[in-house]
Amino acid sequence: MSNDNNFEKRGVDYSIKHGERTLPGKYYHDEGIYSEEVEKIFYKFWIYACREEELPNFGDYKIIKVEDESIILVRDKENEVRGHFNVCRHRGTQLCAEEKGSFESKNIQCPYHAWTYGLDGKLIGAPLMAKEDGFNKEDCTLHHCHVHSWEGFIFISLSENPEPFEVQMEALVDKFSDWRMGDLRIAHHIEYKLDCNWKLILQNYQECYHCPGVHPLLSQLTPFQSAQHDHSKGAVIGGFMELTKERGSMTMDGEAAAPPVCDVSGDDLQRIYYYSLFPNMLLTPHPDFVLFHHITPKGPGSITNNCYWLFHPDVIADKTARERIKSAVDFWDLTNRQDWTVCEQMQKGTGSRRFTRGYYSGQEDILLALDKELLKALGHDESN
Amino acid sequence: MSNDNNFEKRGVDYSIKHGERTLPGKYYHDEGIYSEEVEKIFYKFWIYACREEELPNFGDYKIIKVEDESIILVRDKENEVRGHFNVCRHRGTQLCAEEKGSFESKNIQCPYHAWTYGLDGKLIGAPLMAKEDGFNKEDCTLHHCHVHSWEGFIFISLSENPEPFEVQMEALVDKFSDWRMGDLRIAHHIEYKLDCNWKLILQNYQECYHCPGVHPLLSQLTPFQSAQHDHSKGAVIGGFMELTKERGSMTMDGEAAAPPVCDVSGDDLQRIYYYSLFPNMLLTPHPDFVLFHHITPKGPGSITNNCYWLFHPDVIADKTARERIKSAVDFWDLTNRQDWTVCEQMQKGTGSRRFTRGYYSGQEDILLALDKELLKALGHDESN
Amino acid sequence: MSNDNNFEKRGVDYSIKHGERTLPGKYYHDEGIYSEEVEKIFYKFWIYACREEELPNFGDYKIIKVEDESIILVRDKENEVRGHFNVCRHRGTQLCAEEKGSFESKNIQCPYHAWTYGLDGKLIGAPLMAKEDGFNKEDCTLHHCHVHSWEGFIFISLSENPEPFEVQMEALVDKFSDWRMGDLRIAHHIEYKLDCNWKLILQNYQECYHCPGVHPLLSQLTPFQSAQHDHSKGAVIGGFMELTKERGSMTMDGEAAAPPVCDVSGDDLQRIYYYSLFPNMLLTPHPDFVLFHHITPKGPGSITNNCYWLFHPDVIADKTARERIKSAVDFWDLTNRQDWTVCEQMQKGTGSRRFTRGYYSGQEDILLALDKELLKALGHDESN
Repeated sequence: MSNDNNFEKRGVDYSIKHGERTLPGKYYHDEGIYSEEVEKIFYKFWIYACREEELPNFGDYKIIKVEDESIILVRDKENEVRGHFNVCRHRGTQLCAEEKGSFESKNIQCPYHAWTYGLDGKLIGAPLMAKEDGFNKEDCTLHHCHVHSWEGFIFISLSENPEPFEVQMEALVDKFSDWRMGDLRIAHHIEYKLDCNWKLILQNYQECYHCPGVHPLLSQLTPFQSAQHDHSKGAVIGGFMELTKERGSMTMDGEAAAPPVCDVSGDDLQRIYYYSLFPNMLLTPHPDFVLFHHITPKGPGSITNNCYWLFHPDVIADKTARERIKSAVDFWDLTNRQDWTVCEQMQKGTGSRRFTRGYYSGQEDILLALDKELLKALGHDESN
Repeated sequence: MSNDNNFEKRGVDYSIKHGERTLPGKYYHDEGIYSEEVEKIFYKFWIYACREEELPNFGDYKIIKVEDESIILVRDKENEVRGHFNVCRHRGTQLCAEEKGSFESKNIQCPYHAWTYGLDGKLIGAPLMAKEDGFNKEDCTLHHCHVHSWEGFIFISLSENPEPFEVQMEALVDKFSDWRMGDLRIAHHIEYKLDCNWKLILQNYQECYHCPGVHPLLSQLTPFQSAQHDHSKGAVIGGFMELTKERGSMTMDGEAAAPPVCDVSGDDLQRIYYYSLFPNMLLTPHPDFVLFHHITPKGPGSITNNCYWLFHPDVIADKTARERIKSAVDFWDLTNRQDWTVCEQMQKGTGSRRFTRGYYSGQEDILLALDKELLKALGHDESN
Repeated sequence: MSNDNNFEKRGVDYSIKHGERTLPGKYYHDEGIYSEEVEKIFYKFWIYACREEELPNFGDYKIIKVEDESIILVRDKENEVRGHFNVCRHRGTQLCAEEKGSFESKNIQCPYHAWTYGLDGKLIGAPLMAKEDGFNKEDCTLHHCHVHSWEGFIFISLSENPEPFEVQMEALVDKFSDWRMGDLRIAHHIEYKLDCNWKLILQNYQECYHCPGVHPLLSQLTPFQSAQHDHSKGAVIGGFMELTKERGSMTMDGEAAAPPVCDVSGDDLQRIYYYSLFPNMLLTPHPDFVLFHHITPKGPGSITNNCYWLFHPDVIADKTARERIKSAVDFWDLTNRQDWTVCEQMQKGTGSRRFTRGYYSGQEDILLALDKELLKALGHDESN
């Protein structure tokens, strides 16, 4: 069971708090600020990359694109996932052009001049290059990308010296272990392309003030008044909402899509958790499955948002369970699309020169925490 | 009848006037100058928005886009057209996504958190927001956009404090009242997308030096030697050309398309007036109908140009008149396309680094007036 | 026969030479450096434009586009090819919109106000313009573009005062005269659109370190160990490779595609020459035909690459020779596509912030010469 002694009822105070205003519009539209975000957040923080299950075997690789960078994630013979910048040390050619596959030869060969690297990134062959005049294979190891695995999720950091994963994601450490998420598998996946800033998706995820109007079905299953949030610090913030129906879940008919996941029990059987793992992941454990979103910014006003449904492999293998999985997929696809519409309209409106910093209600106080996290990461003064 | 004591024969002097040269090429290509134009002209001047008839009933709205801004024009219960910035005061969401429609509930509701505004822009409902800690509905009225109606044409100004419409459009005040344009209706409309700077369309409209070569049919109906212009100051400048044929008009066969409009009589029965209403409208009253163009810039090298044909409602209702309306439409569609071709080629040529400021002939002196109006609006020195 | 006393065996020394590193990645990606290249190289150097045979008759023209500029090349009545900027001296309209054609009237008329120029660029008619107040036709001659013809290839310089063609292309002067390329004709042409910087194509062309892995068929016909290069200075650099097969050539089966071209004899019967004519042409004389590439940059990461196969007109006229021409076309189309793939991957990889200046082997020393030529043209310090 998740530790929940920190939770606090949300939504009791809807008043505007003095001085609590939204970010200025430039944070959603300015190319310069976007470049800063890439530099100081996406190239520096731990970010979600992919699931362990996407690289099942020795030699399997997947390319992760982060803005202008391309990272090779590859499973080595010790069953570890390794990360390398997808750049040959000879003249800079991109080594892997395919998005995913397997290195059959168990090494990585540049297609241009055939320089060859081990899966650990070490240069093992450079045709016709003599060892003289200062050329050493040891100087030509592929640039390393840091990798951390948590419950089947692979995170990477493009920083040369990232802070420890456990520091950035402190609140994750002993959370959600009952779900044993490393044992779950992707049952379904939808990619959405959206015309809005990446932060609007996090904001939308962290308040339910919009739920009654935007999500009638969701509000029926989990009334917005049931929302609680915790006081976690740092990149992991969130809370939960309560299911009104016993043994219910977020599906088209409100019934569970599957038996409880692994060791989930007690209060967790009636809760939907909503945690944003700043900056690029939204993790939504249900009693019977786990939903998560992977957000990839493509400029200040554009993202791809990949949504995944994780179920226990026994459920996935059970053909009679297909309709129930579909019901969970349909529910969230409907809810997602309702959210994307308002996020895209907020993107448009905040571009107006007359948009002045908006008003946060008490219901929206996690958004203020998100804003502060952002400004701290950028090194910007909160008063600007 | 229009007052015409100011008209002066055009085209008698084709000589280059000392020092009268065209604008430098950057005025058609530079992104920085374009941004200045948006700021100092399109966000400040009165600009044409739409016709009154496009919002016939209480609650009807139309969205007007001006560069990055979106304005809601809506007809209120006093039958006035009101203008609001399309931006919720809560967190900046765009209120209206549809280009036109009707607010059935007679109010404007944000799709995100259901904040609700009257058609006058006042916040009348903000769910669950308590009035405390400084939150006042009065602070959250939609940002106002100024609206002025003239002869059925709605003009807007995005400036917070625009100069009076009558000052900018001084020369319009007692002009063309015989046409009673407010009584006319749109009989036809064509949208053109063009790859040229918006000012090239105004220049093209204000000289007939190009007519013999570019418009053989137009030149036959109204010889370029007949052109006269007036000495109006400010944003409204123009003149007229004379029809050679008694009771003629600008149609494929040169015959009138309809009886004279409303009170049009005397000399006006033989004249085609050409007035540019700087910056975004060209108004062309004929004896028997009114043509107008609505120019919307989309960057330095791109515009949309919407062309409308206004006829008396009796003519529009008369099925036997359809062929005559079509003849007027065909004539101007042909003439428009001839003009767009040369404007697009001028756009291309002026992008060359070898383009030096061109030569104006006496025939092109209104263009010099347009250039001066532009430079004054931008606050640029004329000698640059 | 070409003069070859300067050739030196390539590929004997594969060691890294101290301090010989590739260009920094910004030279392939930075918009500012690209603008400098346009300004200081493409608008200044002699560049390949088209073949003489593309303008066979008096009055024929072709439009050459160089970044933002458009040049009219036209054949005059003295059978000379003339170059003019495609910009009317009146108000800057582009004179010619069609990519190629013939001026039937033997003059160039502006479509806007009918100003008319002779094929020599002189203004010969400006309707209704009186000669007074300082207007002189003599001031309105079309801006001149320099033209130089060499062996059927037309080169242009957009500079007002280019250095002589023979200075820039010094090493071309008495080279390849045995081919009498002016007598050859285009037998085939393919346009490729590529996502890479223009310089990567030149680099790819000037080293065969990649040949064994990328071009198995080419390496079989001309082993990379046979490569020799000469010490030409300036914009023309290159060398040759040797055919293993007697009377062979670069075709799918390695047999000649045609009899030797014109006066080609001796050693040249067994050689494939590879010369880059900096900045935009690659010239590849074979014993039996001539291949050339025309590179047109379209921003830092994009080019069009037009590839032409020149054969003797007798071969082109001979229907039985078609299969052999096709074999030469197929061979180079295959080889081209192999090269484009690695060039596009190098473009991607060098965009990484972790790409550090790569290592040149002894085999790649002509690339260092190309880099130096570039830096000299840009006026950049080699150590940056």
